[in-house]
Amino acid sequence: MPPMDTTNEQCRKMLAGEFYEAWDPYLVEARKKAHTICRDYNSTNATGGDEVQRNRIRELFGKVGENPYIEPPFKCDYGANIEIGDNVYMNFNTTILDCAKVTIGSNVMFAPNVSLYAATHPTDPVLRNQGKEMAYPITIGKGSWIGGNVVILPGITIGEGVTVGAGSVVTKDVPDYCVVVGNPARIVKRLEKPAEDAPTMKLP
Amino acid sequence: MPPMDTTNEQCRKMLAGEFYEAWDPYLVEARKKAHTICRDYNSTNATGGDEVQRNRIRELFGKVGENPYIEPPFKCDYGANIEIGDNVYMNFNTTILDCAKVTIGSNVMFAPNVSLYAATHPTDPVLRNQGKEMAYPITIGKGSWIGGNVVILPGITIGEGVTVGAGSVVTKDVPDYCVVVGNPARIVKRLEKPAEDAPTMKLP
Amino acid sequence: MPPMDTTNEQCRKMLAGEFYEAWDPYLVEARKKAHTICRDYNSTNATGGDEVQRNRIRELFGKVGENPYIEPPFKCDYGANIEIGDNVYMNFNTTILDCAKVTIGSNVMFAPNVSLYAATHPTDPVLRNQGKEMAYPITIGKGSWIGGNVVILPGITIGEGVTVGAGSVVTKDVPDYCVVVGNPARIVKRLEKPAEDAPTMKLP
Repeated sequence: MPPMDTTNEQCRKMLAGEFYEAWDPYLVEARKKAHTICRDYNSTNATGGDEVQRNRIRELFGKVGENPYIEPPFKCDYGANIEIGDNVYMNFNTTILDCAKVTIGSNVMFAPNVSLYAATHPTDPVLRNQGKEMAYPITIGKGSWIGGNVVILPGITIGEGVTVGAGSVVTKDVPDYCVVVGNPARIVKRLEKPAEDAPTMKLP
Repeated sequence: MPPMDTTNEQCRKMLAGEFYEAWDPYLVEARKKAHTICRDYNSTNATGGDEVQRNRIRELFGKVGENPYIEPPFKCDYGANIEIGDNVYMNFNTTILDCAKVTIGSNVMFAPNVSLYAATHPTDPVLRNQGKEMAYPITIGKGSWIGGNVVILPGITIGEGVTVGAGSVVTKDVPDYCVVVGNPARIVKRLEKPAEDAPTMKLP
Repeated sequence: MPPMDTTNEQCRKMLAGEFYEAWDPYLVEARKKAHTICRDYNSTNATGGDEVQRNRIRELFGKVGENPYIEPPFKCDYGANIEIGDNVYMNFNTTILDCAKVTIGSNVMFAPNVSLYAATHPTDPVLRNQGKEMAYPITIGKGSWIGGNVVILPGITIGEGVTVGAGSVVTKDVPDYCVVVGNPARIVKRLEKPAEDAPTMKLP
């Protein structure tokens, strides 16, 4: 997808982290377009590494590195705000609400049922019931592994070489080279930073 | 859907909160009928706000307010026992086991991957292995926001204007105007009740 | 499915619990074959108990007892490594990464959105980024009930007659006849072992 149109005021606010109206007609149309690509992606018998599927991902996302491998079903809101590096693998049923920028480094792996939620609402019911929404960027550093059924909240940065244990809810930033688990996720292990020239695999 | 047939003894017991047999032929047929509507809902390219989809929801649920907006995929067991108010939004992959009544107030929003389980089984393996099941109603008050990947257990009442944080498991009733998070969910914030005439948005 | 070909070195290592390369061509093909059956299973209007669906499960799994009843969608990696007893019920959206043997006893019930992950990766980013993976068997004893949105980790054995509460993450073995809840799951109740001749239901 090309970058979203920030001459649209609600889109500009959304990407700037300000209150915005998610039901603005431009945003509704942009979501429908992404949802349609997702449903095509999810309704074929082609697996994530097939070229027809990779081309759909290249059409859907803002930037795509080499060898994307995303097992269907996959769902996102706009696609345009997602940038992934090389050799990124996402297993079944990834959900990304990319109302803000979502940046995923090279050699990141997702287990099944991972959810990245850049979108949020006010906890104040008066503001919320007026339709105000907000979105904050999510970043995952290269070589990290996100376990099954993990939830990552708006505004979170996960460092490089991190392991997020299955079933964790990540509510705070995670530094490089550590292991976090639990709801909320807490650091349980710290690891050495690998040598800069450590080899990394390529997806087929 | 019309109300379920409580002249069927197992159905009567199910809706009365007594032990019942889920494999009663009437109940099996009722589930198949709802599952078929759900699969039609989930297999088209139409998004939740399209009129063809809204008509399916009106066919599926017991009562539906104005402007239902449910992003596919959506799954439920009977449909007939679900009642929703106006401007209810459910994001991707909502699961509702509506073996008892499930009542959702106006202006309630679900993030993706929310599950409402009105159905349960005995923890006693002897009773359970005989096929005994039970179901208890779930209620969510108006203007509440249920975060991503939240699980709500049988018999739970969530008040008005509540926020349930992403990844929470709600095992106890939640009072009006508060924020709960965690597994099990606990109150972390209390809010003022809004003025009666506070404006509420309409879904397109 | 017939047993996997352990004359393939990566497959042998996978099933032996050693480091293996998941992108070995034989393993990639085996996953594609299983994913294709899963997608056929998930794209029809037939429910889990229909004979056409049961035959797909018999084609997909390594061993299948009487009356399997699996509500679509269902996803697994190989199928060949899954063995289930009689009258096993899995509700919507079960995910099984059967990179090691996954054995499920008779009369086991899964609520919706249950995930069994026999597959894992090193937490050491150097090893992980070389593509090393491991898998360890998962076993669930007869008559156990796995609640909604439960995650079961690699190598876990769950005993007979166990209840795993909704939203739990099972990180340790669970003994027979108890109830566990939480993330990580902990024992909250112990139950009597039923008489050997206690009756068990059959699925239709």
